[in-house]
Amino acid sequence: MNNEMKWIQSITPQKYHQPSLKVGIGDDAAIYHTEEGMETVVAVDTMVEGIHFTKKTMSMKAIGHKALAVNISDLAAMGAIPRYYLVSIAIPKEGWGKKELADIYSGMSEIGDLHRMDLIGGDTVSIKSTLVITVTAIGIVEKGRRLVRANAKPGDVVFVTGPLGLSAFGLEHLLNEGLCTMEDEKLWPYIKAHQFPVPQVKAGRLLAESNFRISLNDISDGLASETMEIAEASGVSIELQWNAIPTGTTLKEKSRDEQEKWILYGGEDFQLIGTVGKENWDELWKKFQENQLPLYAIGQINDSKGIVKVELINNAGNRDTLTKTGYDHL
Amino acid sequence: MNNEMKWIQSITPQKYHQPSLKVGIGDDAAIYHTEEGMETVVAVDTMVEGIHFTKKTMSMKAIGHKALAVNISDLAAMGAIPRYYLVSIAIPKEGWGKKELADIYSGMSEIGDLHRMDLIGGDTVSIKSTLVITVTAIGIVEKGRRLVRANAKPGDVVFVTGPLGLSAFGLEHLLNEGLCTMEDEKLWPYIKAHQFPVPQVKAGRLLAESNFRISLNDISDGLASETMEIAEASGVSIELQWNAIPTGTTLKEKSRDEQEKWILYGGEDFQLIGTVGKENWDELWKKFQENQLPLYAIGQINDSKGIVKVELINNAGNRDTLTKTGYDHL
Repeated sequence: MNNEMKWIQSITPQKYHQPSLKVGIGDDAAIYHTEEGMETVVAVDTMVEGIHFTKKTMSMKAIGHKALAVNISDLAAMGAIPRYYLVSIAIPKEGWGKKELADIYSGMSEIGDLHRMDLIGGDTVSIKSTLVITVTAIGIVEKGRRLVRANAKPGDVVFVTGPLGLSAFGLEHLLNEGLCTMEDEKLWPYIKAHQFPVPQVKAGRLLAESNFRISLNDISDGLASETMEIAEASGVSIELQWNAIPTGTTLKEKSRDEQEKWILYGGEDFQLIGTVGKENWDELWKKFQENQLPLYAIGQINDSKGIVKVELINNAGNRDTLTKTGYDHL
Repeated sequence: MNNEMKWIQSITPQKYHQPSLKVGIGDDAAIYHTEEGMETVVAVDTMVEGIHFTKKTMSMKAIGHKALAVNISDLAAMGAIPRYYLVSIAIPKEGWGKKELADIYSGMSEIGDLHRMDLIGGDTVSIKSTLVITVTAIGIVEKGRRLVRANAKPGDVVFVTGPLGLSAFGLEHLLNEGLCTMEDEKLWPYIKAHQFPVPQVKAGRLLAESNFRISLNDISDGLASETMEIAEASGVSIELQWNAIPTGTTLKEKSRDEQEKWILYGGEDFQLIGTVGKENWDELWKKFQENQLPLYAIGQINDSKGIVKVELINNAGNRDTLTKTGYDHL
């Protein structure tokens, strides 16, 4: 048996969670069954060393966790139940040994197991330098259920599922001080938000099960950018209340400019942002309460007669039009 | 609109082939429906610049074609009908502009369209150097149909769907002489086999529809390695007849050692290798004939009482035990 086969065997799950899986790792492709009444949801995301992470900012386990978590977050933003994932990894010939790889996969399988997801395939290839990890995540959602970005309508309440800006604030400390920033206990929640983001699967499912008309997006690129995506897809204007946006207390002690940088443009919080009709807001909020999940109203959709924009209303009542920044890859 | 959005718009299909697609490119994830009675087949493969291709050996269009073709080949090896694909691409900041990317995607969409596949998602990220392209391919196959490697039994006929060694022979010329090797018309089929491999989807479907007990594998890593995978998965011993293995006439003029290097260990031909019960061979062969597709018997499965091996019987009747080489990535 060669090294590659041994490696594949070492990452092949001993036991699969999903009875719908018919053929797992080890053949040309995986085969699974989708239950009657359900549709398939699929997303792909890539993380590149030096662009999305460095060894200075992320442990091996965190790299694995995050590579899968960002994909689960995409499924959550569609209200889906996670099921399977495939991992393609390009490994530099130097600096990344078996121990590092095993730790990356253990980070993935920990969060995968938490969601009863099965690793069903992938590819392991060489690269000169720069680790590249691509995860394909597959989930299911009830037939006809569409929590897409285009569903927002004037009068809707805009909500988010948790605090924002934490990941970007944590990353800034990691970049400046490296992993020893962990010595300051107050920074733990921020470091954790960056390294081990928690995809909002349960919130996504509550939203899907509510049967309300809901638009939804996950916050990977920053609040401004993700809100603008909903505005553009729905052809509406959105206003956000600065003082209603949840964040962390240590972050809130910093200057207003810095807060905006992290909260509006930081990204990678992987909370969900969405909209729901005003008439359904109370019931939705109560549903979240019953499930011990927070839900924050942070703005509303205005009747803009086709003008697409996102405005931020600050504490004094002034309006600023937000630009969509986010990372521009081309 | 930023560059990334413009780019996503430029690769978003104007029209989708598959009515089962519910949400395509442009949201957090894609959603599709799987017809009753069908199961989903999914595979992922990555191609890395400098490892799987260079600008010296492959045009942009060929890179795109091949990145999708190798994944379609995995679906074909499961007898599946291709449906969808997702593309994740890491683009170096220098040396790969919009023109190059557009050509890569056009190479993909040409073969994708041929199989009525829809591009339904992906990710576009930056990388310091080295283009990396990961494709996820999704297909469907009839419920309960399993053309897996473990199905071979003593007495079975071993078959392949087309000539072998062509891609490796073509690559050797490309590496030695670069793209000007195209001046020699006799080399065209070999260059084409390397740059624009044809996944054997129709052959895979004929095999699936036959309802015979069939083991199947696609030849990505070389005949010796892929035959050994069937032997290992099925726990059998396989013998191959050297003079029965189909190849090209120009290649056949070279020394026996060189022929073996290309045919047994070269790989990337993306033909299918499989086994079928002796009693079904004639009917299967006739079925292929009726569909204007070749099918070559190249060996048989022996009753080896659990000993797993692959032997090559040469023209004089001598037996050599083949080692599985193939590329060892770790």
